[in-house]
Amino acid sequence: MNYPPSLQTVMDELGRFPGVGPKSAQRMALWIMRQPTEDVARLANALVEVKENLTLCEQCFNFAESGSLCPICADDRRDATVICVVESPTDVVAVERSRAFGGTYHVLHGLLNPLEGVTPDRLRIAELIRRLHGPITEVILCFNSTLEGDATAMYLRRLLEVPDLVVSQPANGLPVGGDLEYADDLTLSRAISGRRTLEV
Amino acid sequence: MNYPPSLQTVMDELGRFPGVGPKSAQRMALWIMRQPTEDVARLANALVEVKENLTLCEQCFNFAESGSLCPICADDRRDATVICVVESPTDVVAVERSRAFGGTYHVLHGLLNPLEGVTPDRLRIAELIRRLHGPITEVILCFNSTLEGDATAMYLRRLLEVPDLVVSQPANGLPVGGDLEYADDLTLSRAISGRRTLEV
Repeated sequence: MNYPPSLQTVMDELGRFPGVGPKSAQRMALWIMRQPTEDVARLANALVEVKENLTLCEQCFNFAESGSLCPICADDRRDATVICVVESPTDVVAVERSRAFGGTYHVLHGLLNPLEGVTPDRLRIAELIRRLHGPITEVILCFNSTLEGDATAMYLRRLLEVPDLVVSQPANGLPVGGDLEYADDLTLSRAISGRRTLEV
Repeated sequence: MNYPPSLQTVMDELGRFPGVGPKSAQRMALWIMRQPTEDVARLANALVEVKENLTLCEQCFNFAESGSLCPICADDRRDATVICVVESPTDVVAVERSRAFGGTYHVLHGLLNPLEGVTPDRLRIAELIRRLHGPITEVILCFNSTLEGDATAMYLRRLLEVPDLVVSQPANGLPVGGDLEYADDLTLSRAISGRRTLEV
């Protein structure tokens, strides 16, 4: 005897989530059975609604709830001459949380990875190039410090060879609060070669 | 700037699952955004349907898909004179997988834990006692080898003081394939005191 078909269906569907294996899916499905029906309906509803309501901003391709522009692109207090290019909407939230950036974003929805079939035409790169027709002064390539992130940055660096356009990248170095002893060699080497002069 | 409200709602709802923290909920919500709308609708539908279709068997309180009895209680090839008492429907599936048992089950939906407020009246114990009016010859108390499992077994052992009724418990011992060196003291001591004579 296995689980009843409708319970097995829920386990299979939950098991498709990233990072959710069969055991977790089983635990989640049994938890569902213990919840009030209205709570489960609310979850099901939230899932359907987010797919209906959420679209991509037609300028930066971040999530936009309603209308064609996301809140950042629609906000005229933001500096529209600087674009921070990121991999995903999660990264927009991370950079916003740092409060270090007052410009606009451009979400590529991925990083170059030819072996996995992610070629430049699969990313929102053409749309980024189109935005350069506007009064853009700087593009910040803000990707993960990984092979894919570096490859994407290098590829875009060559594409963005435009007069008077500054192309930059965030500094590599020791994470704040990080222990020198536990820093990997590459991080430490980049932290040292990118050292800052301390003014008195 | 945070996530759009409808996305935040999905993250909050997914974050209520057991074992799903804010980071996992975020990853799952962003995965939802990348899925085709019909796949998400199917998941939402499965959640609502399982709550609508699945009830508890009115004899053993295992999950039952339709009708009043679960497939095991409805199957007259099963030995209805032996009841295996377990904590949850997951345990029914585990014992069934072992193919070592051909009787019926009784699901308590929990183990005694007075500190957490789980007293005997919160479990399906009265319903178990009522089943003893039938021609029951043996009750197997098949719980986790934990404090709560042992306490529940001891409590039921006293309740089930009925003439001609055998009350048993599965053997404690070394798990098959387990390494003697890594067995904890209690397991090893129970394995030794419960040793079997090898016949030639």
